[in-house]
Amino acid sequence: MKDKPELNGIMEFGDMPASEFRESGRWALDWLADYFENIDDFPVLPRVEPGDISRMLPSDPPREGEEMGEILEDFTRIILPGVTHWNHPGFMSYFSITGSGPGILGELLCAGLNVNAMLWKTCPSSTELEQTVMEWLRKLIGLPESFWGLSYDTASVSTMHAIAAAREMVPGIDVRRQGLCNSGKRLRLYISDQTHSSIEKSAIILGIGLDGVRTISSDEDFRMEAPALAEAIKDDIREGWTPFCVVATVGTTSTTSVDPVDDIADICREHGIWLHVDAAYGGMGAVLPELKWVMKGCEKADSLVTNPHKWLFTPQEFSALFCRHRDLLKRAFSLVPEYLKTDQDQVALNYMDYGIQLGRRMRSLKLWFIMRYFGTSGIQRRIRRVIGWAQEIAAKIDNHPDFVRIAPVPFSTICFRAVPEKSENDGDNSATVDTLNQKLIHAVNRTGRVYLSHTRLNGKLAIRMALGNIRTEKRHVEEAWNTLLEEWESLKEEFMEAG
Amino acid sequence: MKDKPELNGIMEFGDMPASEFRESGRWALDWLADYFENIDDFPVLPRVEPGDISRMLPSDPPREGEEMGEILEDFTRIILPGVTHWNHPGFMSYFSITGSGPGILGELLCAGLNVNAMLWKTCPSSTELEQTVMEWLRKLIGLPESFWGLSYDTASVSTMHAIAAAREMVPGIDVRRQGLCNSGKRLRLYISDQTHSSIEKSAIILGIGLDGVRTISSDEDFRMEAPALAEAIKDDIREGWTPFCVVATVGTTSTTSVDPVDDIADICREHGIWLHVDAAYGGMGAVLPELKWVMKGCEKADSLVTNPHKWLFTPQEFSALFCRHRDLLKRAFSLVPEYLKTDQDQVALNYMDYGIQLGRRMRSLKLWFIMRYFGTSGIQRRIRRVIGWAQEIAAKIDNHPDFVRIAPVPFSTICFRAVPEKSENDGDNSATVDTLNQKLIHAVNRTGRVYLSHTRLNGKLAIRMALGNIRTEKRHVEEAWNTLLEEWESLKEEFMEAG
Repeated sequence: MKDKPELNGIMEFGDMPASEFRESGRWALDWLADYFENIDDFPVLPRVEPGDISRMLPSDPPREGEEMGEILEDFTRIILPGVTHWNHPGFMSYFSITGSGPGILGELLCAGLNVNAMLWKTCPSSTELEQTVMEWLRKLIGLPESFWGLSYDTASVSTMHAIAAAREMVPGIDVRRQGLCNSGKRLRLYISDQTHSSIEKSAIILGIGLDGVRTISSDEDFRMEAPALAEAIKDDIREGWTPFCVVATVGTTSTTSVDPVDDIADICREHGIWLHVDAAYGGMGAVLPELKWVMKGCEKADSLVTNPHKWLFTPQEFSALFCRHRDLLKRAFSLVPEYLKTDQDQVALNYMDYGIQLGRRMRSLKLWFIMRYFGTSGIQRRIRRVIGWAQEIAAKIDNHPDFVRIAPVPFSTICFRAVPEKSENDGDNSATVDTLNQKLIHAVNRTGRVYLSHTRLNGKLAIRMALGNIRTEKRHVEEAWNTLLEEWESLKEEFMEAG
Repeated sequence: MKDKPELNGIMEFGDMPASEFRESGRWALDWLADYFENIDDFPVLPRVEPGDISRMLPSDPPREGEEMGEILEDFTRIILPGVTHWNHPGFMSYFSITGSGPGILGELLCAGLNVNAMLWKTCPSSTELEQTVMEWLRKLIGLPESFWGLSYDTASVSTMHAIAAAREMVPGIDVRRQGLCNSGKRLRLYISDQTHSSIEKSAIILGIGLDGVRTISSDEDFRMEAPALAEAIKDDIREGWTPFCVVATVGTTSTTSVDPVDDIADICREHGIWLHVDAAYGGMGAVLPELKWVMKGCEKADSLVTNPHKWLFTPQEFSALFCRHRDLLKRAFSLVPEYLKTDQDQVALNYMDYGIQLGRRMRSLKLWFIMRYFGTSGIQRRIRRVIGWAQEIAAKIDNHPDFVRIAPVPFSTICFRAVPEKSENDGDNSATVDTLNQKLIHAVNRTGRVYLSHTRLNGKLAIRMALGNIRTEKRHVEEAWNTLLEEWESLKEEFMEAG
């Protein structure tokens, strides 16, 4: 119940009064600033079991409105204890992402303006700022001018649009009009055994099906084998398939390996196949001159996705798709009902023509803030620093008698595995060693100071440590390493005694 | 260049310092509060031409970082003049949406926490809060317990997932595995001539193609003709098509007409066809007891989408999909790579199993804030009020000698048309009258006080006035009406003199 008589008139209708918005807003801002200052004190992973949070939430919405103060109190009392702190400097799991200060402020203003920039007319600034920011990003990662960029929410969605454009290019069928049901074609898409699962999800959605996805083996460094790809395509053509798209990766999810895009691009060109590059994570590495090589061959791709919300300090969601065939994207997706026609349709860019989503927030505001606030050199310094730390950790692993590094470390993600007395036995493949590594990950994560993830490489369980959060400092990396060593020593002792 | 020596150490690496975050954050908050207080002073539509904004933006990102103060200054100097003010109380175009105060604060905290709740483990609170909030929403709009809900970004994406689940249910083919290329089936999806364009976009993406979409005529009130649907399905079966999905609408985009869902549901059941209901806009009307009828038959649907970011004061993006076949959604979309397996997979909900997007923000926070802050009764009061105003405008149109209302007004959107001396001639169909109405819309919009849109109904151009913004007050509706009358009087005079 509202008990502020002076607000009664406003509260019956209308929005939150400005005074309350200022007051609650300051609380939220201060809370966030304190949170970031004290983020070290939180356990990275929350100590809750499934159902713990929902049990504290009423099963019905309140009939009468509640004070914002009470609601915010519940935010800290109920929600916070169940939050996995992606902001924690010890978050070294999956890919470490950062919602940086300027990015958060961009989100705040974006939420306030709340435009839907589906058409140029419905927010000229949003459309034109996005085009500018996409050009900045294109230059930052070193793609040529022939690539035109736009944003989607996630890499999964960017990639789905790229593959849909590729599908539109297949000769002899008009997919947009006829669909695939009667195409008489069996479309084939190529990935490696390290490719992100979202590509297979796209294949499901696009009606290609998992059978239409052919997986190419990767080499000992987890890079797609280009000769195997060339063979597979020739095989498939003989068998009556229509190869139409290859997805190569710059920075795979498991090991951040970099596919030989240059070679793959040549194979694609030979057969007129669309090459899409998933550089969601790795593309950002190319902001460093010393890592320009990761983009080698990408200039020959048809499309490329990279995610500022992964390694460019941008709060979710912001995925950038660059495409050399803007016309095909539009051909695949443009459908303009009468009520969305405008006087500017011939002269202005209407983003709704390029995708499934009609709604479009002023997503570029946060990235504009970030690129200006940090500057190109500030972005480079920050990315270079974590890569340096990752190399140091990799060297420590290489020098440790019980640890084996399982993959190269081109960026800032390290995959390794504990193998006790590795030099004396070859038990590396055993399920016992897998279990031991699983236990090690759990033990480290249980400390609340570090959060590591896992993957499976050549059948073996590997520990995965991914650096990238802007708030991670040298001391956190050292703490992570020391925590790992401590937990390992105690586990090893137990293991040796048991075995 | 940073010239604050005390910040140099921090600014070389790391995030924006907390003090600067607080300071810039307060600026942004105060700016927003002032903006909302003075929103009346802005022209709804910006006075810019294509290219005006981008011309003011440099073509390269800055090498060195810039002060946040400068960046925010450019936000007001460059970006603001090109913003279409969706927050303006005179924004009565498309559907009027609102980013309300509590919703904006929810977005701020969401951006700060920046979790990716793809898995329960990666943010238990986000997953469990979303489940709770979806239950609240389900109850609010009166759907039975058999519906399970989750959020996506937009209705287009929610609907795409629903149709993908429907496709997965088609007997005799395993779409997930085999795709559609060799299915031997020609899938057919049914919409009306008033259905939102996103359904056709879904059909393109899903490989069904526009040829696989059959459009059913609508009656004089723009409601899908159920008997025509029944006929079409029988026809199609005879012709070898496989009817698999019907999309009905509660609140179409042009006129907000409500399809006879109850009758359509019976037809769907008879043939084992998936019924998806697009209640993106209209679903929210059902929060009012007097509008419960709009949901009649929806309890028999297989899925339904409604958008809190349309009429529930929620900043974009938040679309809610309710589905009676949670298992099918999962069967269509679940793909779990090794690195995303967790100990809780058997007992907890991992949202990544239910869609293409792996990334998931703590989207439900803003809706939780909104439903608590306004309360059910506060939401009802606000929605009821704009519907009341729309009825008043409809009555004024009906009583005006020069205006003709073209569609019923079940919610808060009015479609009408100016027809000079309507009683004396039947020139209603002429292109001249279309042009006149187009001129009238332009004249009204040019005042900057009101923004109306248009649509085309039975070949005739109609003016479309959509109320719904929480900041719209009675005086704004009156002003809109008066502006319309004034502009009409002057146009009419011109027209009569010319003609």
